[in-house]
Amino acid sequence: MNKVSVLFFPDNLVAHVEPGTSLLRAASYAGVELKSNCGGEGTCGRCLVKVKDGRVKLKGKGNISAKARQAGLVLACQTVVDGNVVIEIPRDSRLDEHKVLLGEKEILVEKDEELAEGYPLQPLCRKFKLSLSAPTLIENASDLTRLQAALRSEVDCNDIHIGLNTLRTLADILRAGDWNVTATVAQLNGCADIVHLEQGHSSRQSFGLAVDIGTTTVVVYLIDLETGMTLGKKGTYNKQARYGDDVITRMIHASEKVDGLQDLHKAVISTINQLIDDLLAQGHVSGDDVHMVMVAGNTTMTHLFLGLTPKYIRLEPYIPLAASTPPVSAADLGLNINQNAFIACFPSVASYVGGDIVSGTLLTNMAKADEIILFIDIGTNGEMVLGNKDWLVTAACSAGPAFEGGGITFGMRAMKGAIEHVVIDPETFEVEVSTIGKMKPMGICGSGLIDCLAKFRETGIIDRAGKMQSDINTPRMREGDDGYEFVLVPGDVTECGKDIVITENDVKNLLRAKGAVYAGIRCLLKAVSLEESAIDKVLIAGGFGNYINIRDAIGIGLLPDLPAEKYVFIGNSSVKGSRLALLSQDAYREAQELGKKMTYIELSAGNEFMEEFVSALFLPHTDMNLFPTVTVVNKA
Amino acid sequence: MNKVSVLFFPDNLVAHVEPGTSLLRAASYAGVELKSNCGGEGTCGRCLVKVKDGRVKLKGKGNISAKARQAGLVLACQTVVDGNVVIEIPRDSRLDEHKVLLGEKEILVEKDEELAEGYPLQPLCRKFKLSLSAPTLIENASDLTRLQAALRSEVDCNDIHIGLNTLRTLADILRAGDWNVTATVAQLNGCADIVHLEQGHSSRQSFGLAVDIGTTTVVVYLIDLETGMTLGKKGTYNKQARYGDDVITRMIHASEKVDGLQDLHKAVISTINQLIDDLLAQGHVSGDDVHMVMVAGNTTMTHLFLGLTPKYIRLEPYIPLAASTPPVSAADLGLNINQNAFIACFPSVASYVGGDIVSGTLLTNMAKADEIILFIDIGTNGEMVLGNKDWLVTAACSAGPAFEGGGITFGMRAMKGAIEHVVIDPETFEVEVSTIGKMKPMGICGSGLIDCLAKFRETGIIDRAGKMQSDINTPRMREGDDGYEFVLVPGDVTECGKDIVITENDVKNLLRAKGAVYAGIRCLLKAVSLEESAIDKVLIAGGFGNYINIRDAIGIGLLPDLPAEKYVFIGNSSVKGSRLALLSQDAYREAQELGKKMTYIELSAGNEFMEEFVSALFLPHTDMNLFPTVTVVNKA
Repeated sequence: MNKVSVLFFPDNLVAHVEPGTSLLRAASYAGVELKSNCGGEGTCGRCLVKVKDGRVKLKGKGNISAKARQAGLVLACQTVVDGNVVIEIPRDSRLDEHKVLLGEKEILVEKDEELAEGYPLQPLCRKFKLSLSAPTLIENASDLTRLQAALRSEVDCNDIHIGLNTLRTLADILRAGDWNVTATVAQLNGCADIVHLEQGHSSRQSFGLAVDIGTTTVVVYLIDLETGMTLGKKGTYNKQARYGDDVITRMIHASEKVDGLQDLHKAVISTINQLIDDLLAQGHVSGDDVHMVMVAGNTTMTHLFLGLTPKYIRLEPYIPLAASTPPVSAADLGLNINQNAFIACFPSVASYVGGDIVSGTLLTNMAKADEIILFIDIGTNGEMVLGNKDWLVTAACSAGPAFEGGGITFGMRAMKGAIEHVVIDPETFEVEVSTIGKMKPMGICGSGLIDCLAKFRETGIIDRAGKMQSDINTPRMREGDDGYEFVLVPGDVTECGKDIVITENDVKNLLRAKGAVYAGIRCLLKAVSLEESAIDKVLIAGGFGNYINIRDAIGIGLLPDLPAEKYVFIGNSSVKGSRLALLSQDAYREAQELGKKMTYIELSAGNEFMEEFVSALFLPHTDMNLFPTVTVVNKA
Repeated sequence: MNKVSVLFFPDNLVAHVEPGTSLLRAASYAGVELKSNCGGEGTCGRCLVKVKDGRVKLKGKGNISAKARQAGLVLACQTVVDGNVVIEIPRDSRLDEHKVLLGEKEILVEKDEELAEGYPLQPLCRKFKLSLSAPTLIENASDLTRLQAALRSEVDCNDIHIGLNTLRTLADILRAGDWNVTATVAQLNGCADIVHLEQGHSSRQSFGLAVDIGTTTVVVYLIDLETGMTLGKKGTYNKQARYGDDVITRMIHASEKVDGLQDLHKAVISTINQLIDDLLAQGHVSGDDVHMVMVAGNTTMTHLFLGLTPKYIRLEPYIPLAASTPPVSAADLGLNINQNAFIACFPSVASYVGGDIVSGTLLTNMAKADEIILFIDIGTNGEMVLGNKDWLVTAACSAGPAFEGGGITFGMRAMKGAIEHVVIDPETFEVEVSTIGKMKPMGICGSGLIDCLAKFRETGIIDRAGKMQSDINTPRMREGDDGYEFVLVPGDVTECGKDIVITENDVKNLLRAKGAVYAGIRCLLKAVSLEESAIDKVLIAGGFGNYINIRDAIGIGLLPDLPAEKYVFIGNSSVKGSRLALLSQDAYREAQELGKKMTYIELSAGNEFMEEFVSALFLPHTDMNLFPTVTVVNKA
């Protein structure tokens, strides 16, 4: 049969396939990775593409909205080629490197290119095309005075600064452009800073980066500062992991090892540079055109990013070196972008409530809300903010890395091969698992662990205290090296060839993690004398937070027993808040205010947290009145 | 390429250079400063040296007399090395220590340790000894927030900045001093910047530098910022001289030579660093304790100091890159002091009225005066300011380097061996000279030249137009290679062994120089419709200005014919004004205002200056009514 060509746009990649081949398969031949959670069944509705030219046939209807269809989109898995075709792939349909990083499953994904309500597009860094009058013997102001005068009305700011490096280029640039000049100006904290100059009225774009530095993963968005469009998103693991998986270990490394601080500083800069290089290459953007970076990270990450010691964050009374840090230049940190680019970090509230939480709080708009909102970001730490337009309280609890797979025998991060969902037959104790990427199971990630704990409890595999019920009738329950364990997947069908088990010790670790988060929520509520029922909405952020089953999370007592409709997943709110601040001077200002407005509750002061924590070490809780919709199971 | 060695005798200093390097450049590498007015073009004929041994090649002929050539001399700038060589440097060719730099003869020297009236001691950079409260779990503000809060009341400023380098030291310093800390804070333009931190209540002093960058000479004062005491003063030649004696030649070098701007930037930084090193060694002060530098220079010098191109200052319509420049750090410029030290420059008024004049104007307090003051700074350029508390006008005229010895056959700067005073017997034409340092005469400097011109006119050696009267009865009057000349000192009593003469051409050059200054003064007066008699006081600044005989200066028509008591010498007002601004925040602010308040009169616009200049090319002037006290002499 004669093959036909399928050209994928904008990649300009071609596949030569037989007529009748699905676009999903053709894309894969061409090297274009499309999202597809359902394996080409047409049910997930993610592999949307647009047929620009040529003939195709629809194989089936598939899960596609009327709106998408009207926009000329089809599901690649449900569409087969019938001649040479040209296919355009929307950014949303592309598979990114790391599933949990970039939020493609985020509920709010459709809002990605819009800014939060009330924030008009007014980027922190903008280009101004100016036409200056040429000087004369009489009108003989200096070049800088002339430029400042012309800019003043544009930026609505009297205080216009310029760094020595940029200043040194001014005279020749003004004359080369015959007094037409394009000035790139960063505006933060009431000052305007000229960060770049080009001769004439430049058509070059100006770009910014929104950065989320997580303990585990780092995400960077490349953003067109004129349109506000996100041109690319990349995420990868924080290279600091080589010095320790969790924040505490890294703080110890930074504080106690010779050059330890430099090690960690360089590791995160190198991580970010790698993402930057990839994004720039992919977007065909020159690093010289990147003039502004907005960074959100937890307090320790922000310290390490700037090369500030986090030593005293770890030691009582847990004091950061700086909550609000000065803007620095790319040259100060060695970022692979324009060396005069401005780098600003979100302020922290306290040592364990950092800029990432301020960024998330900004994104949620909760500081402008009438209703009472609980915002939770569950990662290695569990940080939470409660409040509305009148008040905001915040706290952090050491949830530990269990939900990220740390300290769990077969725990792993949410990546390909990780068990993300678990179903257990209450009679036979047979187990069905689904893995990320439909691969052979390699381990189990946070959402899978929550499922496990919930199902273990429901089926009576464990009791309310987390103790394995060794007398249940299944060979999956067995005695291992460290006590009882339950075989989730036998070795003959796992990637690693070993039985994937959950041990009693794993259960204990999970209980501590969920107990800490719930106790934190309780303490926040007590601090403002409210009951759980007062919460109007719960916003769950974090890569981890996207995949959890709310009913299961309530069932194990991780989250308050509220109606499911009160829960909203907001994905990586840290990087999205960074993007918001990068694109809105109002939002940036608001973030500075938020840093001061949020009242931090130190959970390690007093006994309250400890009492709440101990009460929360049961499934779902010692006080069942707090979980009225959760049924107590009593097997055995 | 293999380098060759150039040994300079009698200094025994060696430079290792590539063959083809000029002896002038090699001398500079070796640390031997030769005279060179033309920037190595071979036209000034001053960099004579003797090749004692080894091979050299002549690059060009250059301006060298047959006699010098016969004596085995070559021009260092026109001679390149072609192997290992030994070079002897005659005394005449050496730049020597400069008498006029530090104002030891200044009239106002006794006031040196007081600040100008109305300015209390409040240095731009101060140390604050703070005792912070230790943080607790409840009172858990960040280190930086804590420090800023404590400083805020001290510095009376909300906007307290800190650079990344200093910030990085904060956490450990606070704890090492048990929450006692000493913060060094620079306060300019309404902001406070923490530039240095020390643990505990430090007893270390904080020092500042007041710098005057002249085209010819550079002067630095080392100042104790607590007491305001000047601990040391040093001056030396601006090493930029190797690229040309005057501002114009240097601007051409900076604009047209590859790395020309860098050459000049590095030369002035190296000049200042040498003075800094000397001052620090002499005062037993560590460079780390120098936190603030206040710099005054003419517009071109300020540009070159900061590495800003002066290219467009030279070209009509004569526009500086920046009149007011941002503060920079020592690290930005490579100064040998604390790398975070703040460096601020006085603003310029225009391309030819620079920060040195603003500094001088600040020092004179004329912007607060009721009486009308004329402030003149005569160097290579003649800059002048006229006005009082209500108005200030300023202008600059190209006086040329004649008063600094440039373009005068035996002209030299005011250094040892220079004739500084001349008396001529009106009958016998016998001459008595006195030299700086009571040494054998080597040449004649500015004050000597003014004396000469006045005495020549009074004794009828020249007529009012400057023409030599060849018929006067003395063998001192003779015909030379370039017309008539008058022998001031015969070669048997001079250091150089040659007759020191003044030629008719020298007289013409001096007439042009004095004419330009006087024409400038006239134009300023006309701009405000005043007569000379309206001037209440004339303040004369500049190293040169200290040594001139006022009656002679009036006699030749250089200065207005006003009573001698109206004249006051104020010495190097540029460095003194720098010291004032360094020690007074009010004065610094006033200087910023002055830069904007002074109205610049561009003398090259319109014909007025040219007409005044032509009228002033007589002795004392075409219009004798302007010089009622000067007697017209009619000999012959």
